[in-house]
Amino acid sequence: MKLGVVGTGLIGGSFALGARTRNLFQQFVGIDPDPSAVKQAAELGIVDEIAAEVPGDCDAILLAAPSDHIAGWVVALAEHPAIVFDVGSVKGGILDAVVAELGHVPPRFVPCHPIAGRERSGPGSAHEELFADRLVIQTPHSQLSQADLEQVVFWWRSLGARTQTMIAADHDDIYAVTSHLPHLLAFAYLQQVAPEHLQHAGAGFRDFSRIGGSDPDMWTAIFELNKNALLPAIDAYSEDLARLRRAVDEGDSADIRALLAKARRNRAGSS
Amino acid sequence: MKLGVVGTGLIGGSFALGARTRNLFQQFVGIDPDPSAVKQAAELGIVDEIAAEVPGDCDAILLAAPSDHIAGWVVALAEHPAIVFDVGSVKGGILDAVVAELGHVPPRFVPCHPIAGRERSGPGSAHEELFADRLVIQTPHSQLSQADLEQVVFWWRSLGARTQTMIAADHDDIYAVTSHLPHLLAFAYLQQVAPEHLQHAGAGFRDFSRIGGSDPDMWTAIFELNKNALLPAIDAYSEDLARLRRAVDEGDSADIRALLAKARRNRAGSS
Repeated sequence: MKLGVVGTGLIGGSFALGARTRNLFQQFVGIDPDPSAVKQAAELGIVDEIAAEVPGDCDAILLAAPSDHIAGWVVALAEHPAIVFDVGSVKGGILDAVVAELGHVPPRFVPCHPIAGRERSGPGSAHEELFADRLVIQTPHSQLSQADLEQVVFWWRSLGARTQTMIAADHDDIYAVTSHLPHLLAFAYLQQVAPEHLQHAGAGFRDFSRIGGSDPDMWTAIFELNKNALLPAIDAYSEDLARLRRAVDEGDSADIRALLAKARRNRAGSS
Repeated sequence: MKLGVVGTGLIGGSFALGARTRNLFQQFVGIDPDPSAVKQAAELGIVDEIAAEVPGDCDAILLAAPSDHIAGWVVALAEHPAIVFDVGSVKGGILDAVVAELGHVPPRFVPCHPIAGRERSGPGSAHEELFADRLVIQTPHSQLSQADLEQVVFWWRSLGARTQTMIAADHDDIYAVTSHLPHLLAFAYLQQVAPEHLQHAGAGFRDFSRIGGSDPDMWTAIFELNKNALLPAIDAYSEDLARLRRAVDEGDSADIRALLAKARRNRAGSS
């Protein structure tokens, strides 16, 4: 069994290392537009060989490229006989882009989203237990066979992940609120932060703004791909912010306290 | 030397424990409107005795009460001969409230703000090293003597803190941006978070929203006391958010990327 790994960074590299340990595949081929990343992946034993194109004899192809490059790979591989699965943070936008190009989704494409750490990057950070106890979501489309879905689910579970199947639009609505919106708000917040502020930054600042140091290219792509779910989430947030601002401006202690208590309740259960 | 500790929770209790270890004071009296807190503080050995009022023979009085109660204590203790120092998160608003009441600031009041953990609370969380390597800010007023300022700075440094002297208005502007605004934004963000989101919450969500679980009473008081610095910070933020929203809406990748890159640069150096 041969796996093609398109994008040999943290996510692709970690999947390959975990799959090798569990003997899910015997041969690993790395494909990456960044020659230094794929060379490093080969040196680290993540892949056995480097290829410029995805070989025709791959049994499966993992698309661990940036979110805005995945649809292009799915289109390019539409005639390839292998199971193709991805790790994009947005699902509906990728499927829409594929349909816009091909008129349909290739039947063997299994859309996936592993909720796994993104703070570090590159093959040097890859490790075989990255997906242990992490949630990996699949968003099947109408052309997908149950057998292909179950095969990909089996691979993720073999790496220790929990899996969940959802409708792509539901996935995108939920992650707009739980992930994409907080990143956007942290990026907006940091615009007014100047050097004289940093020496006065406490633990609250560091935790709150940590995701605002995330990779600009990766998040530009995610925001654009999930624009349809993200814009309404921004607008709901802006209304809540305006209400809280008004309560502070008018000295309405009861309303401030009610909003703060609701925030605390809504978060209860998270750590 | 006798220290009166008004408010025997995390901050007051930790100062008392640290001061006892270093032998800065020999007697500790606890005063707290919450009888269970001050009883627990006595049982834990944080204070030696409990009093309903601040005894007249205290040499120093630490006001570790909620921020919106501090001005009232400063006014009530205006004729007390002891050095009085506080731990309020807002400085200008407290001084303004005192002046509104008395027409002046009592000369022996030394306004302080320790930047120390607030996630836990109560005397049970107090420990003698809470201020080790933490920043404690003093915002002197025109009536304050250099000797009293240096005495309070000496106590904080004895507990391992770093100290810094600032103008109250500068303190409030800086902490509006680095602390009060992030809390307010996290509270606003959590308004739309529902139970179905929490199971999809990753590390980014948890870090970003952690401060949104903070105590509603404490933060209502801080927002109201620092309203004058907080409202302009909210408005600057809203403009930055509107620009980022517009860039996403218009698909202006270059502008999104520029804003995200600026956010990352502005945060560089924080952990």
